[in-house]
Amino acid sequence: MPTISKKGQLMPQSPIRKLVPYAEDAIKRGKSIYHLNIGQPDIKTPQVALDAVKNNTIETLSYSRSQGSDEYREKLATYYKKHQINITLEDIIVTVGASEALQFLFSSIMDPGDEVIIPEPFYANYTAFSTASGVNVVPAICDIDDNFALPTIEAFEALITPNTKAILICNPGNPTGYLYSEEEIKKLAKIAIKHDLYLVADEVYREFVYDGATHYSILQEENISQNAVIIDSVSKRYSMCGARVGCLISKNKALMQTVLKFAQARLSPPTYAQLASEAALETPQSYFDDVIEEYVERRNTLITELQKIENIKVAIPKGAFYCIVELPVKNTDHFAQWLLEDFDIDGETVMVAPAAGFYSTPGVGLNQIRIAYVLKKDSLIKAVNILKQALKAYKD
Amino acid sequence: MPTISKKGQLMPQSPIRKLVPYAEDAIKRGKSIYHLNIGQPDIKTPQVALDAVKNNTIETLSYSRSQGSDEYREKLATYYKKHQINITLEDIIVTVGASEALQFLFSSIMDPGDEVIIPEPFYANYTAFSTASGVNVVPAICDIDDNFALPTIEAFEALITPNTKAILICNPGNPTGYLYSEEEIKKLAKIAIKHDLYLVADEVYREFVYDGATHYSILQEENISQNAVIIDSVSKRYSMCGARVGCLISKNKALMQTVLKFAQARLSPPTYAQLASEAALETPQSYFDDVIEEYVERRNTLITELQKIENIKVAIPKGAFYCIVELPVKNTDHFAQWLLEDFDIDGETVMVAPAAGFYSTPGVGLNQIRIAYVLKKDSLIKAVNILKQALKAYKD
Repeated sequence: MPTISKKGQLMPQSPIRKLVPYAEDAIKRGKSIYHLNIGQPDIKTPQVALDAVKNNTIETLSYSRSQGSDEYREKLATYYKKHQINITLEDIIVTVGASEALQFLFSSIMDPGDEVIIPEPFYANYTAFSTASGVNVVPAICDIDDNFALPTIEAFEALITPNTKAILICNPGNPTGYLYSEEEIKKLAKIAIKHDLYLVADEVYREFVYDGATHYSILQEENISQNAVIIDSVSKRYSMCGARVGCLISKNKALMQTVLKFAQARLSPPTYAQLASEAALETPQSYFDDVIEEYVERRNTLITELQKIENIKVAIPKGAFYCIVELPVKNTDHFAQWLLEDFDIDGETVMVAPAAGFYSTPGVGLNQIRIAYVLKKDSLIKAVNILKQALKAYKD
Repeated sequence: MPTISKKGQLMPQSPIRKLVPYAEDAIKRGKSIYHLNIGQPDIKTPQVALDAVKNNTIETLSYSRSQGSDEYREKLATYYKKHQINITLEDIIVTVGASEALQFLFSSIMDPGDEVIIPEPFYANYTAFSTASGVNVVPAICDIDDNFALPTIEAFEALITPNTKAILICNPGNPTGYLYSEEEIKKLAKIAIKHDLYLVADEVYREFVYDGATHYSILQEENISQNAVIIDSVSKRYSMCGARVGCLISKNKALMQTVLKFAQARLSPPTYAQLASEAALETPQSYFDDVIEEYVERRNTLITELQKIENIKVAIPKGAFYCIVELPVKNTDHFAQWLLEDFDIDGETVMVAPAAGFYSTPGVGLNQIRIAYVLKKDSLIKAVNILKQALKAYKD
């Protein structure tokens, strides 16, 4: 028998995917599940984007340019300028989701054995992309008691070695909902310049910020233009996860030329989805206002309901649509599976993401879960009630 | 300044892309270009596929399953069964083009330093995917005088080392148009089993076979079901290059579980394009009959016209829509650039792909070009005439 690569064996399985067979089984046995486990919004895609695809006049579905169509990148640049990010289409390469942007970036800046520092907990697929590139993740541990704020400069610098090539943040954060302050971004920029590191910001949740806060992008720090890389995507902003359109943004020409070589090898991003993404840039402001209002309500509902449960700890999210919750259980992997296999209230249960998968430090986060508040208010109330009753019934 | 990875520096640029700036410049100066350089067919996409997208009723453009939608994979399995490839939906993972399928495969079966044997000349991006994975390509040299037939078993086996993990063929071949015989496939299967290697066949041109020949797939060899991997794509079959939908097929469960981990990390293939691809499976046979008739005519025209040129050598293609032509020049890189910069007949010139980029052996193929016969008959006649006059005018 031919063999599997070491890399392939090391590839992690997402903490959510592991539960899918149990969920499928539960559904077969007639249970209904409230999905708090995945960031697939139920929000409708903007009509203007849907219409652009329905009304397309393509007769031969050809490759687009490897870097994405000029029309789309031109309009994207205008979008970023409105958000105080001063770039041109030359600074943008359109990718197949933020996922591909991260893979291109990792390949372009790191060789096997190199290191990337990531505030922890972090999006589980960062581990997957690192493993695929042979890169080591060095976690900068953030604490739920501190609402997942950044560690001090000193703590951060202590993690830097000669192999460190980049710092990667997610802002606002998945899975924490943490929004970095301008001061924190400046702090990271300083470290990046001092140590010649890339500062990479996954800003796919940029517009999901609440309570009057504003998002401060790393590219608003003009002095780090050669170090800064933004990873972005249409998936969450326009509820277009299935488009698979993202982008990588940098003003560093050597980096962009390298990324382009990876982009050319895979020929082009998807054409229909680029049409939708280009049109989505015309989405009226009222759409976003409604969406943000909806998420704020959902978040408030979720937090209010969660706080009614005894012995749990919640980090209040300031952005995105996730939060980390600490539960009075030893192992949420087991608890999440038990919820699907052995618990229900009137045939209903909840699916949550065990948080250990969002930590690379072994043994940390075992008593935490990530909740995605992508369900309607009523469903959230019911789901949290199920969680509450489940915690009473559950024996470690 | 932060640095570029070694891998990123090593990434090759496609032999075609290098010429693009010269082509753009030629167009700016008012020249018309016959594009013989790229496999972007001018054929219309089947109406049934276009309509499926135009008539879609999606309201929230969600992620699909990471392995592709069950509906699509189910229908795909039926398609393959019709082509004597006995598989089920479990043996298929839908990917973002054949490109992604190859990347997932390389990552799943090879670590840095491992080797893949590829009959040469080969599709230039195989080098790119190998470089991105840190894998070494070992070429099995095929000769234009032998019409690019496979080397002997002995010559093939002499290339195998303890680091060899796979043999990769493209059948029918890009850039050669070579169609492997059943006997050759059996020969490769024998080697793969004997040495515990994967036998990977890029079969994206499967249906483009001419002169009454039939395509023999590696998965028709039932005894290599654990070694065989098919790479496929809708791009050429349905003239849907911009869809970015391909797939990886194998009956090896351990391999498929590993590939799935890479697929899950990037979440899902594009949703709209899957709709188009699923519908494309309903394309009437008459579409293919017309397309094949068209390509046979184009090939015959191209070959007839080329054979009128003195001192050139053509390998007659039996499939796909490419052929390799040996020219009486020293360096086709230079010749191709000269065609764009310094030559025209009544304002018209041709763009060809220098073949050196399809060889990994240094110094081989320098006097060859690849021609893609994706243009209408009249254009092909004009293009070859320009080539003929150019060869008379060109000084090495």
